[in-house]
Amino acid sequence: AQTAVTIYGIADMSFDRFSGSNGGLQSNATVTRLDSNAGNNLAGSRLGFKGKEDLGGGLSADFKLEMGIQMDTGASEQGSNELFGRAANVGLNGGFGSVHLGRQDTPAFELLNNIDPMGVGLAGSSGNIQIGNKALFPVGGLKGVPEQGWIGLGAIRANNSVRYDTPNLGRFSGSVLYSLGEVAGSSQGSVGVIGLNYKQGPLYVGYVHIDDHGAGVVSPATVDFNQKSDAIGATYDFGPAKLHALVATKTAHSAGVTDKANYYLLGVSAPIGSSTQALASWNRSSGRNSNANSADQYGLGLLYSLSKRTTLYTSVAKIINKGNAAFGIDGYANHDGAAFDYSTLFNMGITHSF
Amino acid sequence: AQTAVTIYGIADMSFDRFSGSNGGLQSNATVTRLDSNAGNNLAGSRLGFKGKEDLGGGLSADFKLEMGIQMDTGASEQGSNELFGRAANVGLNGGFGSVHLGRQDTPAFELLNNIDPMGVGLAGSSGNIQIGNKALFPVGGLKGVPEQGWIGLGAIRANNSVRYDTPNLGRFSGSVLYSLGEVAGSSQGSVGVIGLNYKQGPLYVGYVHIDDHGAGVVSPATVDFNQKSDAIGATYDFGPAKLHALVATKTAHSAGVTDKANYYLLGVSAPIGSSTQALASWNRSSGRNSNANSADQYGLGLLYSLSKRTTLYTSVAKIINKGNAAFGIDGYANHDGAAFDYSTLFNMGITHSF
Amino acid sequence: AQTAVTIYGIADMSFDRFSGSNGGLQSNATVTRLDSNAGNNLAGSRLGFKGKEDLGGGLSADFKLEMGIQMDTGASEQGSNELFGRAANVGLNGGFGSVHLGRQDTPAFELLNNIDPMGVGLAGSSGNIQIGNKALFPVGGLKGVPEQGWIGLGAIRANNSVRYDTPNLGRFSGSVLYSLGEVAGSSQGSVGVIGLNYKQGPLYVGYVHIDDHGAGVVSPATVDFNQKSDAIGATYDFGPAKLHALVATKTAHSAGVTDKANYYLLGVSAPIGSSTQALASWNRSSGRNSNANSADQYGLGLLYSLSKRTTLYTSVAKIINKGNAAFGIDGYANHDGAAFDYSTLFNMGITHSF
Repeated sequence: AQTAVTIYGIADMSFDRFSGSNGGLQSNATVTRLDSNAGNNLAGSRLGFKGKEDLGGGLSADFKLEMGIQMDTGASEQGSNELFGRAANVGLNGGFGSVHLGRQDTPAFELLNNIDPMGVGLAGSSGNIQIGNKALFPVGGLKGVPEQGWIGLGAIRANNSVRYDTPNLGRFSGSVLYSLGEVAGSSQGSVGVIGLNYKQGPLYVGYVHIDDHGAGVVSPATVDFNQKSDAIGATYDFGPAKLHALVATKTAHSAGVTDKANYYLLGVSAPIGSSTQALASWNRSSGRNSNANSADQYGLGLLYSLSKRTTLYTSVAKIINKGNAAFGIDGYANHDGAAFDYSTLFNMGITHSF
Repeated sequence: AQTAVTIYGIADMSFDRFSGSNGGLQSNATVTRLDSNAGNNLAGSRLGFKGKEDLGGGLSADFKLEMGIQMDTGASEQGSNELFGRAANVGLNGGFGSVHLGRQDTPAFELLNNIDPMGVGLAGSSGNIQIGNKALFPVGGLKGVPEQGWIGLGAIRANNSVRYDTPNLGRFSGSVLYSLGEVAGSSQGSVGVIGLNYKQGPLYVGYVHIDDHGAGVVSPATVDFNQKSDAIGATYDFGPAKLHALVATKTAHSAGVTDKANYYLLGVSAPIGSSTQALASWNRSSGRNSNANSADQYGLGLLYSLSKRTTLYTSVAKIINKGNAAFGIDGYANHDGAAFDYSTLFNMGITHSF
Repeated sequence: AQTAVTIYGIADMSFDRFSGSNGGLQSNATVTRLDSNAGNNLAGSRLGFKGKEDLGGGLSADFKLEMGIQMDTGASEQGSNELFGRAANVGLNGGFGSVHLGRQDTPAFELLNNIDPMGVGLAGSSGNIQIGNKALFPVGGLKGVPEQGWIGLGAIRANNSVRYDTPNLGRFSGSVLYSLGEVAGSSQGSVGVIGLNYKQGPLYVGYVHIDDHGAGVVSPATVDFNQKSDAIGATYDFGPAKLHALVATKTAHSAGVTDKANYYLLGVSAPIGSSTQALASWNRSSGRNSNANSADQYGLGLLYSLSKRTTLYTSVAKIINKGNAAFGIDGYANHDGAAFDYSTLFNMGITHSF
């Protein structure tokens, strides 16, 4: 049976140094670590098992089981009891496209991954700004709570989900994912994502729509939560450099309160010789509420390939929160209950694929 | 070393729809899910590692490490901290038979698996009726508590266990398993299982005896619990159809109270052409206490093989509880503290072996 | 990608019988178990994935992911949420030596493993005496708290660590490991280990120094803890028998209190024919505080190899605590709050490598 299974993975570790400041409250704001996380290393460490069976007539079945690993401790990246926190799904593929059932990436995360020159990694990961719901919803006076990403935590990877991918339709392809909330008599906890892709030579354009009823976050029995997001992104490879851009908007409703924000990403990636690559990006969250808050993140990265499978990297990023915005790098959004006005992360590491 | 290890597994996902009703209390009783569980999918999803070493002279050593996986979330099927919740054992094999130490299936679960046309899976899994101890013991007035299966939760797979299997002795073979309670000065928490098998052409007959001192369930220090079960089952393959039958009885004692029940299973499985199989079964629990309760489960299943390794399936089952019986399908036994009089599960799914 | 990954492991299970006595308090002091633990079986059960990539120019990259397994239950040996509790690291190797980042063995554990004839396993594992911090620090009157090992729990395997190993420098080699505490503005939680090795024919000599700021144990925010240990050990293979010896000392400070102790190990291992090996060892902890306590452990072991990969074993050990010492075998140090004066463990088991 062994021939049916391919084992693969990534081991990624970095040194990093985080510092945050918020006016007079600076104690404990600087920390140096040996770190492994899917958020700000070049890649999330993982061990995967996958296989594909030819069923004849153009049909095939496949499966994927992928562990997320914190290499610095050996623990599961996705938390308690998660064996295969990155992926666990089975599917059928054919001329009709493919259908997969289980836990899997959403088209929303894939769009962000396609557009972000950092690959939703490194110090300046777009995930710091574009992903996440730190709290349920705006609470007046709490610094930073309103500003959350347009991709909710349950819309990165989706549990209990069915996903359909079209075959390549000329230059177009599309995907639909629906994650069941599994709550009797309610759509609470569910999330639906639609994605469209267009590729022509050096141009890639992608679009996604998310309809999130609190997947992975909101207690379905007590809160009626709904967040709708739209995003469009594009990359164009000029040869000496590739340009990256994305704009997104979200509108969230809960308990009679509405939260609106826009999001932006601009980036550039450029090869320097055959084994080095330079990356730069700007990410912005711009609240559209009465107490409009915003945040900007500026990131730089440099990759040096020792081989196709092994790469050294270094990166640096800074987040500037304005108003009550409370975005943070690498999970460090605040200290002693007060958000950092400025957060900076520098890291250098190694990523090894197998 | 890799040649010594075989990697294998099953990925199984289904859509299912459960509904339960109990008189006037029907709210929240219907739910639709994308599901992966060892109970009511065709097979429990798993990833395993095993190997065998020839030691010469007819002797060999082997090991087995098998993860149980909830494919819908990537979590461990067997719960927190369980890496290899389905099996973790090492053993020696020879002319004398085999001895294995660790966590492993009991002969009781294997008998049920051999007899049940559903393979202790699908909506109408025999496990819904024949397996389980939902609560410690009968408590007067609590609906359904007395009726539990004849295979306790610690007698499905046994921790801390040594198992001996005879070689084939003509048409007979036998197994003995003992799981240590590991409590000083007491047998509490232990379970012993004896199994006998007879095979002759189209006929299979199996018998098991269980002596369960609360393995996996009862707090050993405070409660003196003992449950004894006997079961005999048989299958006969007529060619166009195979008949399946089992009868079991249990007597449990705890704190001066006695709980008795009988259990029945009748089933039929029939191939339809080369790649389709139809399954039907009836499972019954019949209490023999003064407040005698009972439950009946009717199940149907249909399997369609895309290949030897990949099968599509659909199944449906209904449980009818009488008196205070509280059996349920797929873990849904009650709602808001009241047991369902009627429980129905319909599912359709895919199982892929590798 | 599969060719890049080697799968390996050990499956080890034993029967064991523990008994402890402490004057009049002997109830519940004897227990028989089927056991799998890295402490007192011959080897810790594990499943590992590793690989190495040749980068050219004498440089290579490698990774290691190693699960620790309790074979008796299938659970993680290293506890909740630990997928790869034994090792999770990535590194570069070259003429300069090697650098690895992640979770990995320290040179301190390796020295003990090199010196102990039991290999830090079996009933008489040196780990019972030489490893561990049962409590934060001496508390007057609590039996046994002062006497802890010279290798703290965070100095066996180190999280968040960088390790450098020299290449072989003639007969010498050396290692430095530093585990970051990752506490802002403090060294709390960190541990540093230096190791030196010397090999010449039948002689091996090793030395380690540990500077432990409470790695894995002390709450960094509230306690200023520091423990320094030095150990030197040697083995000499006379042919018919190999001699093993180690002496270590530690000094720990916390909250104005100082705790000092010396540690000793003497052992012998001898082949008997081609497939049998006999082992014996004495381990001693000798407190140097005013209320000086001490403990002696005497251990015997016998290994019988069925093949290079499969070995049967039996072992027995006894710990004698004097004064308030509270060392225990296999995690059994006390009963109902009172330490055992005498602890005895007997076991017999099988270990199978793959």
